Amino acid sequence: MNNKPIDFFFAPASIAIVGASPEKGKLSGIIIESLKGSGFNGKVFAINPKYTQVLGIPCLPSIQEIKGTVDIAIFCVPAKVIPHLLSEGAGSIKGAVIVSGGFAETGEEGKALEKEVKDISRRLGVRVIGPNCLGIYDTVSRLDTFFIPSERLKRPAKGGLSIISQSGSFAVTAMDELSREGIGVARVISYGNKADVNESDLLGFLSEDNATSVVALYIESIEDGQRFIETAKRCSLKKPLLAVKVGKMGAGASAARSHTGAMTGRYEIYRAAFRKAGIAEVSGYEELIDGCKALCLQARAKGKRVMIITDGGGMGVNIADAAAAGGLSVPGLDESVKEGIKDAFPPFFAAGNPMDLTGSVTNEQFALAFEKTMSEDFFDIAIIAALWGPPGLSDSLVSLLAQKAGEIKKPVVICSPGGAYARERDRLFRESGMPVYATPEAAVRAAKALAGRGHLQSKDNG
Amino acid sequence: MNNKPIDFFFAPASIAIVGASPEKGKLSGIIIESLKGSGFNGKVFAINPKYTQVLGIPCLPSIQEIKGTVDIAIFCVPAKVIPHLLSEGAGSIKGAVIVSGGFAETGEEGKALEKEVKDISRRLGVRVIGPNCLGIYDTVSRLDTFFIPSERLKRPAKGGLSIISQSGSFAVTAMDELSREGIGVARVISYGNKADVNESDLLGFLSEDNATSVVALYIESIEDGQRFIETAKRCSLKKPLLAVKVGKMGAGASAARSHTGAMTGRYEIYRAAFRKAGIAEVSGYEELIDGCKALCLQARAKGKRVMIITDGGGMGVNIADAAAAGGLSVPGLDESVKEGIKDAFPPFFAAGNPMDLTGSVTNEQFALAFEKTMSEDFFDIAIIAALWGPPGLSDSLVSLLAQKAGEIKKPVVICSPGGAYARERDRLFRESGMPVYATPEAAVRAAKALAGRGHLQSKDNG
Repeated sequence: MNNKPIDFFFAPASIAIVGASPEKGKLSGIIIESLKGSGFNGKVFAINPKYTQVLGIPCLPSIQEIKGTVDIAIFCVPAKVIPHLLSEGAGSIKGAVIVSGGFAETGEEGKALEKEVKDISRRLGVRVIGPNCLGIYDTVSRLDTFFIPSERLKRPAKGGLSIISQSGSFAVTAMDELSREGIGVARVISYGNKADVNESDLLGFLSEDNATSVVALYIESIEDGQRFIETAKRCSLKKPLLAVKVGKMGAGASAARSHTGAMTGRYEIYRAAFRKAGIAEVSGYEELIDGCKALCLQARAKGKRVMIITDGGGMGVNIADAAAAGGLSVPGLDESVKEGIKDAFPPFFAAGNPMDLTGSVTNEQFALAFEKTMSEDFFDIAIIAALWGPPGLSDSLVSLLAQKAGEIKKPVVICSPGGAYARERDRLFRESGMPVYATPEAAVRAAKALAGRGHLQSKDNG
Repeated sequence: MNNKPIDFFFAPASIAIVGASPEKGKLSGIIIESLKGSGFNGKVFAINPKYTQVLGIPCLPSIQEIKGTVDIAIFCVPAKVIPHLLSEGAGSIKGAVIVSGGFAETGEEGKALEKEVKDISRRLGVRVIGPNCLGIYDTVSRLDTFFIPSERLKRPAKGGLSIISQSGSFAVTAMDELSREGIGVARVISYGNKADVNESDLLGFLSEDNATSVVALYIESIEDGQRFIETAKRCSLKKPLLAVKVGKMGAGASAARSHTGAMTGRYEIYRAAFRKAGIAEVSGYEELIDGCKALCLQARAKGKRVMIITDGGGMGVNIADAAAAGGLSVPGLDESVKEGIKDAFPPFFAAGNPMDLTGSVTNEQFALAFEKTMSEDFFDIAIIAALWGPPGLSDSLVSLLAQKAGEIKKPVVICSPGGAYARERDRLFRESGMPVYATPEAAVRAAKALAGRGHLQSKDNG
């Protein structure tokens, strides 16, 4: 194992792009554009014996020509030449990001090349992220090694979420979708075949990283289980940690193997490890996205008792079913709560859990129901399903609810399903800081993430 | 049981609005606006002894004053006066839609009122939809009794989907969301507490209805199980039938009871009945929406063998996992298929299932992979997960895929997750007729609906 710290990857003062080329359509060109777009203000060198300048950046014939030590060398040259270039340049760099494919994911020849990279990394003390990866997008150090043009992938704003993913496309798609929902990121690391730096290294860093408040993991395989559990445990005590393990069985498992050359192992072992480590396992992309959004916007709940308030009875029942299936608890109303509501509400409001305020509801009654049920210690999370049909509901419902939520100081999840009218109200909820979801099931996935610290057993995963 | 046919509800020549009032904010006023907006071209009467005209419609003091028989009387008066008005007017109307609440869902007094309505319906041969419902939205007969203003609920265009729902808000939200996705409806019926007309009556009608090609059901309770199974069986032989049963257990079950006064019964019995009837049970709102969209746009599959093609390896693995968890089958590639692909693709494409075309893919290679894997009888459904990062992909990928899909004649589901760039491409997919989903899990829900004829056992429901 390579024990040198990896912190420098997230605060580099200098970067070299090995294989930089001015030719159109080359990965290196996109990476240079990404770096420029990120506002990185350290030194940047291009490395290529053919040029003296590439896209406005000074170009040297080899890494060794650079004076002093470079923090990160980004390799975008064919797999075959990487071992040679890496060992030659090792004395001049702290770390490498190898974005090139053509390694263990392609067969025996690639596996041998990857083993060479691994050996060089250990022998010469160079930390390596990749190969077969996108590298790092980091809003704190303003680093961006992603070779996806900005017109295809709008870079997210700064935020508290960090993502660690073997799959580059998974990481990118998740951050892109969350960014559209107003969720920013701190560090996103696509680490591919992990010839050297792995999830345990990265988790160790994020655990101590003040810029990171929520960690999402996409995992195909873990090799050093004991170290992973210890690191994750330390991390999950400080901040929520959501993980999706793909390649659970059959076709998925063999696909994961051919994807990053990973040994996926038995799924049950992963489940047990996650539980031990305090990681909340999610069933896939959807649960990861919905959970991250909730955890970035709301504090974690103290337990899993959910109160459901709605003006659409059917939707309320659907949420209750989904909550029960997801391992949340939906207790009935305490008599004292019922008593407190009785005089405030007409008799046809269903004073239970879910509470159905019917099509006769007003903004004020919605807020009152929220206050009366959530103020005391009967529930940990509120799911508020606001259907916009009732004439008594208007846009100011959102600020009223947000105000109460601020007073009550318990996590709130909004479910606002429907068509154009509902979607146009999403912005109001987003501005209020309350996470909004378009389906009962998505709202429940959010509530699960808020309630869970690895102690919730999802039936979806079973 | 009331045996008179209910077809007239879906082809009315005349409508009376009982309790019509020009006062602002009254339900009757919204219903009159809805009727006007729908383009209903039969006769419309207002009934109210206080007025001679309401919102431009001639007003009579009582139903009996109308000459001849009126097809539908819509009751929007307080529950207490309904039995009296209904029995008085019974001789002049074929059917009633009682939108008013205040019946079995509110307690003993309401239950007694509902029993009166039931008795009148049987004794005098008046068919009754409701009480406590929205009634009918029908693009074929241009009928719209929904008391939700058009600015809050944009009415869907004409289409092949019909929805039967005890919950009005559930039906409305579902049709609104699907409409935003370009899916139109034929008949949407919110039948509330079902004092008379129930799901079996409505299914019987939709079974014979040429305008309806897909049926969605939201069910809290079924009373006449044997008749329901027989009717549903007849219907499901002709067209796909998706059903969500809410109130499965605990909080959900008691909420369903208080919602429409329904006896929810033991969930296992419902599951067995659905299976017998060839109904594809879905776990909730989300699965219903995703499934309906797929079934409205694509033909049903002959089996459950799914081929997954993607340029994002991680997303492919996630889809494979979700498909396996959902009871679909993800078989490997036949040697003949592998052979046929070998020369066309670079060696680093993962020629398996899922097939990972990597970031180096082009439009043509995506289309070729689709053709090569789906042409023979190895797979029933294709899930194509197109991530838009690769520079080789452009908008014309969509028409290329659509063209191949037209030739191959097997259902296709598109998974296109991500942020703004992906969402902007949704329109292209919609115009192509291929259903597009934003998450791997949603695409799998769609594939399940296409594969399912009640023969698929979802683990989510277990």
